[in-house]
Amino acid sequence: MPDAQSRLSFAIDLAERAAQVALRHFRSIDTLTIETKGHQDLVSNADRDVETFIREEIAAAWPEDGIVGEEHAPVESGNGHVWVIDPIDGTANFVRGIPSWCVVIACTFEGRTEVGVICEPSSGETFSAARGHGAFVNGKQIRISGATSLSEGSVGTGYSSRIEADGVLTAIRELIAGGGMFFRNASGALMLAYVAAGRLIGYLEEHMNSWDCIAALLMIEEAGGTIMQTDPATVIDHGTMVVAGGPGVYAELETIAFRAFAKT
Amino acid sequence: MPDAQSRLSFAIDLAERAAQVALRHFRSIDTLTIETKGHQDLVSNADRDVETFIREEIAAAWPEDGIVGEEHAPVESGNGHVWVIDPIDGTANFVRGIPSWCVVIACTFEGRTEVGVICEPSSGETFSAARGHGAFVNGKQIRISGATSLSEGSVGTGYSSRIEADGVLTAIRELIAGGGMFFRNASGALMLAYVAAGRLIGYLEEHMNSWDCIAALLMIEEAGGTIMQTDPATVIDHGTMVVAGGPGVYAELETIAFRAFAKT
Repeated sequence: MPDAQSRLSFAIDLAERAAQVALRHFRSIDTLTIETKGHQDLVSNADRDVETFIREEIAAAWPEDGIVGEEHAPVESGNGHVWVIDPIDGTANFVRGIPSWCVVIACTFEGRTEVGVICEPSSGETFSAARGHGAFVNGKQIRISGATSLSEGSVGTGYSSRIEADGVLTAIRELIAGGGMFFRNASGALMLAYVAAGRLIGYLEEHMNSWDCIAALLMIEEAGGTIMQTDPATVIDHGTMVVAGGPGVYAELETIAFRAFAKT
Repeated sequence: MPDAQSRLSFAIDLAERAAQVALRHFRSIDTLTIETKGHQDLVSNADRDVETFIREEIAAAWPEDGIVGEEHAPVESGNGHVWVIDPIDGTANFVRGIPSWCVVIACTFEGRTEVGVICEPSSGETFSAARGHGAFVNGKQIRISGATSLSEGSVGTGYSSRIEADGVLTAIRELIAGGGMFFRNASGALMLAYVAAGRLIGYLEEHMNSWDCIAALLMIEEAGGTIMQTDPATVIDHGTMVVAGGPGVYAELETIAFRAFAKT
């Protein structure tokens, strides 16, 4: 991708500044106006403020690039680059005061993720990757888990109530039956970043939106992990099933995912 | 309880100092010696170092008091007071670099919890309560969730692999069927503190050890929540089933717990 390194630097700086904007909202949580967009799908003023901030910064720095995010209409791309952003991943945590949330910024080129950044300001961690250049947390290189058995760690199990529950229930049952353990801190992007950093051994979710997953999926690949490949033609607009993990457990996770999430 | 306020102040200060000891270990996580005590039940040098630190400080300040914790043999009480401590709750997170872990210190008198403190240093929060004096985070009073329906928030669902999985699977299925959502960040004490602070609407776990739950159960009561009462004669040594939540959802949670965790 042209300008990959300058886009990475830009994205890291932007995610960290956006996270500070979000953190100011988070610390005044009592006064937040919380709206219900649907069943357990909460959105706050902060979410939209942070998205507006990110969009304005991108438009100023990279005026030809497109932008896709959850809250606003997409901006078309004039050059093949599309930024895919989630101003606050883990909104349900954010609006209730649970510090497991993050700002997510990815840059894609012709449908393929080239740069991914996730900033979690409560404990001060910024995860980042550029394709072909490794994955990092606060500048320190990260590696996927070397686990060869599900018993060696926990697996992030994402779930949104927009999906029927049968799949995630089957996935959790099969994980435990296989000697594993489930983990769900309600921020899919953060759990995936933890996979890249070897803190969780893998991740399963029946469907994620692109802004929740593509930044971290690049990190996982750059950290040596295995992912279910996404379809560049559809992932940005329609999202994807997510299976990701260390190479020693990926096959087992994929088997569980196919069994749990198969549509009959 | 005699000296409740001075024990509370002591416990807050001690938990925060112990958390700094733990945090130094956490930040050098690559060099930690991780031992496997059993299936996914990890313990580290840090765990034992922090427990030793806490025990020495308690013995110096309150030499007649008893002490119960996970790693060392109990110290008998000469005066009815027993400190119940978990040096690092969320050890599996801790040893892998996930910042959701905490130091837990409770003080009991004749089997009843009188003081509870939970310090989560990664995002800098100390939760505390003394019986009859309310519950606080960083000195600010906290209140239980006012939710009247499971659809209004998430429910912490603790699970340890020392227990058969059927119960937690049934509990998660029933929660989702009831319009709710599960949350498991692998630190039971921290999830319970989030219940006291109204961040989660409730909590369910088939069995918890006393050092993982009694500090936070006091916080939940002091924050206006409802808990399944524990048996003072057995809770410290044998632990308990845990059901806790806002008064508007407690009955529904208890129904789920009885259905999920009933022994036939």
